[in-house]
Amino acid sequence: MEFSLIDRIRQRTAQARDDVHLGIGDDAALLNVPAGQQLVAAIDTLVDGVHFPHGTAAADIGWKALAVNLSDLAAMGATPAWALLALTMPDAEAGFVDGLADGFAQLAQAHRLALVGGDTTRGPLALSVAVHGFVPSGHALLRAGAQVGDAICVTGTLGDAAAGLQLLQESGNTDAHAAYLIERLNRPTPRVEAGLVLRGQAHACIDVSDGLLADLGHLCAASGVGATLDVSRLPRSHALLDLLGEQASRELALTGGDDYELCFTAPVERVAALQSELARLGCGAAVIGRIVAGSGVHVHDADGQALAFERRGWDHFGA
Amino acid sequence: MEFSLIDRIRQRTAQARDDVHLGIGDDAALLNVPAGQQLVAAIDTLVDGVHFPHGTAAADIGWKALAVNLSDLAAMGATPAWALLALTMPDAEAGFVDGLADGFAQLAQAHRLALVGGDTTRGPLALSVAVHGFVPSGHALLRAGAQVGDAICVTGTLGDAAAGLQLLQESGNTDAHAAYLIERLNRPTPRVEAGLVLRGQAHACIDVSDGLLADLGHLCAASGVGATLDVSRLPRSHALLDLLGEQASRELALTGGDDYELCFTAPVERVAALQSELARLGCGAAVIGRIVAGSGVHVHDADGQALAFERRGWDHFGA
Repeated sequence: MEFSLIDRIRQRTAQARDDVHLGIGDDAALLNVPAGQQLVAAIDTLVDGVHFPHGTAAADIGWKALAVNLSDLAAMGATPAWALLALTMPDAEAGFVDGLADGFAQLAQAHRLALVGGDTTRGPLALSVAVHGFVPSGHALLRAGAQVGDAICVTGTLGDAAAGLQLLQESGNTDAHAAYLIERLNRPTPRVEAGLVLRGQAHACIDVSDGLLADLGHLCAASGVGATLDVSRLPRSHALLDLLGEQASRELALTGGDDYELCFTAPVERVAALQSELARLGCGAAVIGRIVAGSGVHVHDADGQALAFERRGWDHFGA
Repeated sequence: MEFSLIDRIRQRTAQARDDVHLGIGDDAALLNVPAGQQLVAAIDTLVDGVHFPHGTAAADIGWKALAVNLSDLAAMGATPAWALLALTMPDAEAGFVDGLADGFAQLAQAHRLALVGGDTTRGPLALSVAVHGFVPSGHALLRAGAQVGDAICVTGTLGDAAAGLQLLQESGNTDAHAAYLIERLNRPTPRVEAGLVLRGQAHACIDVSDGLLADLGHLCAASGVGATLDVSRLPRSHALLDLLGEQASRELALTGGDDYELCFTAPVERVAALQSELARLGCGAAVIGRIVAGSGVHVHDADGQALAFERRGWDHFGA
């Protein structure tokens, strides 16, 4: 890691953790995984103009790069611990690095996560974050495990981030609703605490990063089951419904990416208790469908009428 | 990770390890760190046209992306275990991904390293690899720890990769010497086994990625000491000496990056035994100087005449 930049980033992300034997500053970090815990590890990249609009504020980029990774830990029911940050940018602009580190640190501190190492390189703006957490051995939440008859639930609201992106690209709308949706795009809230509640309670879980249809499809494929979804029950924010109406908001809630809510399945009789527990965290959880025998995700309206959707979610290399 | 690409990469990098509870395919990997071991973690990025020449073969890129990370583990005296791969590329070209995965896998298999997760995104070609290994708790090799009077040693030969880069950029030379030097650039050999030998024997260690002067400077700063280097003792390959001669080869050996040799310090009386042990691995180790009180790296020739060098190594954001 470039030394002047390291120091700037290190100063801004300082977070004491007893399990960090050696953090930033040597060839690698030295870390202690607590006894009885498994290490949970994931990596995700954000590319300028692909995963965030060009011109996004540095602090938002820093926040989001960590948020999308914490969301992966949340989906496993893991407690966050450490991150490595690989930052590529065209030139070493101190103000940009400071902003980015501040946004990263703001979210890191909320989860007591320590930045323990990294790399800064010259090139087109992009960030890869590798994140590490713990689960009690053998108790992670997985995509596999959904059972026929399970209720399918989703936290929070869907479609907001996709609407926020449309607003940024297509309109000059800056009212409160627009601001809310753009904030949802730029500052997603990883559902870490919800994941901890769901561990040992939900049968299967995935985070909604590429769009509900795509991600629920992954969960079903991993579990060897199918799903039916009632579009009328998709949780949507007041901002989304007010701005886009029922029909357009449904489409975004089904296919829009970047919301980083958790989609999970659980026995029907357990759902009410889980909803109460999540509500105590300030996290809504709506029942949106059922796990069925077979394969694929089948969407219907409130009357049971089948619906087809062309675009099934975010394809990183799609047309 | 994009699903068709994941499968291609997973098929090519399959490596069974008992400590991988869950590898590629869920939101995160689940991993077991052995009792009594610390986790050693690092991340490094390669950017097209910055860390490898544009047009480099996919297999070489895949190899090098892992090699530069394994070199960080080597410098800590760690045993490699797992990696996460974040791959960004302009389009999803199967042949390129296959080649890249093959090059990565070739080196991974040599070290029994398992690829346990990743991310593929669209954007300018770049790879970030996060690598994980183990050391017995409290026994890692560090940059700090060099003591006044220590011998300064370096494995292998220096300057080869920098010469290889010059050859690619400036000449059509394709003789055996040139081919050797270009291979050193494209397929660096991380000194993993040497690092294991040095653990518990060397006082301090760093890998030479940015150039000897720069990296030895980091080691000295971390240890609170200075260094004197005898340029006449810098180990250089026959290819480098034959092609460039004594003077130019010295400069590259001092300031050229990308060799991924280990620079370490050890008590003078221990060096001969260490050299024998390393020689059994096929790894040369030359004594190139001494640790002294003070700070900074001071270079002299065989007669003790002080020398100054303008360029001190690879600066990622330099002019």
